[in-house]
Amino acid sequence: MKRIDATGDVRQIGPLLDRREILKAGAGLVAAPILAGIPAGAQAESQTGATNTGPYRTRAYGTTSADRPIGPIEIVRRTLEAHDVLIDVLYCGICHSDIHTVHGHKSQEGSPVVPGHEIIGRVAAIGNAVTKFKVGDIAGVGCMVDSCRTCENCEADREQNCLNGTTFTYGSPDKRGTAPTTYGGYSERIVVTEHFGIRIPPGMDLAATAPLLCAAITTFSPMQHWRVEGGQRVGVIGLGGLGHMAVKLAVARKVDVTVFTTSPGKIADAKRLGAKEAVLSTDAEAMKRLANRFDLLISTVPVPYAMQPFIDLLKLDATLVNVGTLGEIPAGLSGIKMVIGRKSLAGSLIGGIAETQEVIDYCAARGIKADVEIIKPQDINRAYERVLNKDVRYRFVIDIASRGAAGA
Amino acid sequence: MKRIDATGDVRQIGPLLDRREILKAGAGLVAAPILAGIPAGAQAESQTGATNTGPYRTRAYGTTSADRPIGPIEIVRRTLEAHDVLIDVLYCGICHSDIHTVHGHKSQEGSPVVPGHEIIGRVAAIGNAVTKFKVGDIAGVGCMVDSCRTCENCEADREQNCLNGTTFTYGSPDKRGTAPTTYGGYSERIVVTEHFGIRIPPGMDLAATAPLLCAAITTFSPMQHWRVEGGQRVGVIGLGGLGHMAVKLAVARKVDVTVFTTSPGKIADAKRLGAKEAVLSTDAEAMKRLANRFDLLISTVPVPYAMQPFIDLLKLDATLVNVGTLGEIPAGLSGIKMVIGRKSLAGSLIGGIAETQEVIDYCAARGIKADVEIIKPQDINRAYERVLNKDVRYRFVIDIASRGAAGA
Repeated sequence: MKRIDATGDVRQIGPLLDRREILKAGAGLVAAPILAGIPAGAQAESQTGATNTGPYRTRAYGTTSADRPIGPIEIVRRTLEAHDVLIDVLYCGICHSDIHTVHGHKSQEGSPVVPGHEIIGRVAAIGNAVTKFKVGDIAGVGCMVDSCRTCENCEADREQNCLNGTTFTYGSPDKRGTAPTTYGGYSERIVVTEHFGIRIPPGMDLAATAPLLCAAITTFSPMQHWRVEGGQRVGVIGLGGLGHMAVKLAVARKVDVTVFTTSPGKIADAKRLGAKEAVLSTDAEAMKRLANRFDLLISTVPVPYAMQPFIDLLKLDATLVNVGTLGEIPAGLSGIKMVIGRKSLAGSLIGGIAETQEVIDYCAARGIKADVEIIKPQDINRAYERVLNKDVRYRFVIDIASRGAAGA
Repeated sequence: MKRIDATGDVRQIGPLLDRREILKAGAGLVAAPILAGIPAGAQAESQTGATNTGPYRTRAYGTTSADRPIGPIEIVRRTLEAHDVLIDVLYCGICHSDIHTVHGHKSQEGSPVVPGHEIIGRVAAIGNAVTKFKVGDIAGVGCMVDSCRTCENCEADREQNCLNGTTFTYGSPDKRGTAPTTYGGYSERIVVTEHFGIRIPPGMDLAATAPLLCAAITTFSPMQHWRVEGGQRVGVIGLGGLGHMAVKLAVARKVDVTVFTTSPGKIADAKRLGAKEAVLSTDAEAMKRLANRFDLLISTVPVPYAMQPFIDLLKLDATLVNVGTLGEIPAGLSGIKMVIGRKSLAGSLIGGIAETQEVIDYCAARGIKADVEIIKPQDINRAYERVLNKDVRYRFVIDIASRGAAGA
């Protein structure tokens, strides 16, 4: 399985992608590419050297509507501003929220969704004031690409909670670009302001590092906040992309990890990943035995679920934190059961840029990486089906550059 | 208004209360006293000296059924064990949860409910191993009278979360006494093991101190746990018995306090108590203006209420803690809104014995006391009605000893 590290090739994107070439690469996916985000009369032209400053016509993978599969389209990346970096994308992980977004996407005047926020690539060009990166560096981009940088939350290194509105990597109003919304990492190039780029230490397995930019920071951040430390008991609810990283990160802290899953087939995997115990959350006897035991429960379940049975497992003052449940919290929470034992229900959203850099450095120092299955761009739709069928161990990563090798 | 301090009289309970006397004192309340908790053949006899060790036939105020008013009954307090203290009750506060309990009480083989867990009295007798109190001391009893003292939670000074079951001051299975359940402070005497007695420093206004044993500790404990300190913003939801103590205790920490109430008539009161701001929680404009501002919100609302509008007011990492909502948490919580900003919903139950002593000492040192309206035992039912009508500023306290003066 080919994995590109810091020695991989730097591809140059040619002039406006040939329609036939797009059709060839995307055969069977969509009938025709969608030219999106290119304003009428825009002077967007392709660039052939790293010193060019854009705008950059860029091949991407997206769709305009939930009922259409993801296929190749063309987008435009903005002209480099002084603090911007242009990154040639090498790998991009597939996060469950990508699927949520695609399936919830409603066509708005033809505006496509281009998912992807677990991005690893190589810096291809930099704005004239950039100090954090130089051309050729490996860089990561996670779930956000901009924020106001001046509000109370941004000043507390919590750009993901910007009071003026975080610009997330895809689907956010694009305050700097020319498209109505931001486009994510299912694309061959991305432009971000340097603050939102993450330095990737040398020697990391790049494909297996991509998922850390969402799956690891999302589970690392609550462990930092709630001060998970050796000797504690931590539960991880749901063993998917986020869950498997939560297990690895908790094991690294020398805590006893228990995995709760609804998939009997994942019990053995949980133990292989380092969990001391793995139980089916439908096992009433096990759930009863584990009452009042956990210092922290991290739920990676991406849909609403019954939370009270897990709150019952918390020790005094402990917290059940949801990192994946974005819909309405289902009814069924007991006031008295939260009161007794001073238990908390919380949410947590990724982490700030400083903390994202911290988890990358933490994983680099400990050899922690995601378990990945690398796919080609034309396999994205099939991968989505497999994610929904819980048939992934544990993260699909798109080898964005594979087209460059196979189809250029 | 008469208030007894450490110089007040010590009443001696006479032989088995005369039925006519009970009827006279309780005129209009219940048709007949209920003799409860006295096992057939028990050798219960009244004691006339502090050196007697019981059991103690004791006049109390309770009811056997939610549809009957509270009136005088007779109960038996257990024989003193080595670490027990007998307390002649002087004052007992009326907590909203008393009313909950009475209204939810179902007659079980004639077993009555005797509410009351904000108890101040004078030690009348002690077991032979007691070191914490001597006869004549003023002592308090709060919301609990026993726990296992050996489990992990008890060892962490969290007797209210005893893993083997806290014995609450009323309505708990009575593991030591002869009655099926414990009887609270609406009674002229109570026996507790010394660990669960609270020392009352000299000079405190005893009637106004009684409510501290529930209303103050319940709101003090979350302020301790979530480290409320000067310069922060704290919101208090609901301005009743607990709420008015929360305001006083938060003001003592030099934080900006905002009160949320549904009673326009309490706005001015909130400011008089020291709140910087008081708003109607139905004022959408005010609620919007206060978004993302609070370090801690303490809800003293004793019934389910819409919580998401308050979670929206929390700052990063901040918590809405319910100390009064014991029923089901209503639907309507937003997963995404908890995730953004890492907000928590929590509960908190009174405080441990050490922390209860701490808040009493804290209040003694700062002159903090409850705003009370003192009533006689025969006025309990009327007081309940007024509490339910939100017509109390801010705590009724029963002058249990008043009958001794008036009717003995």
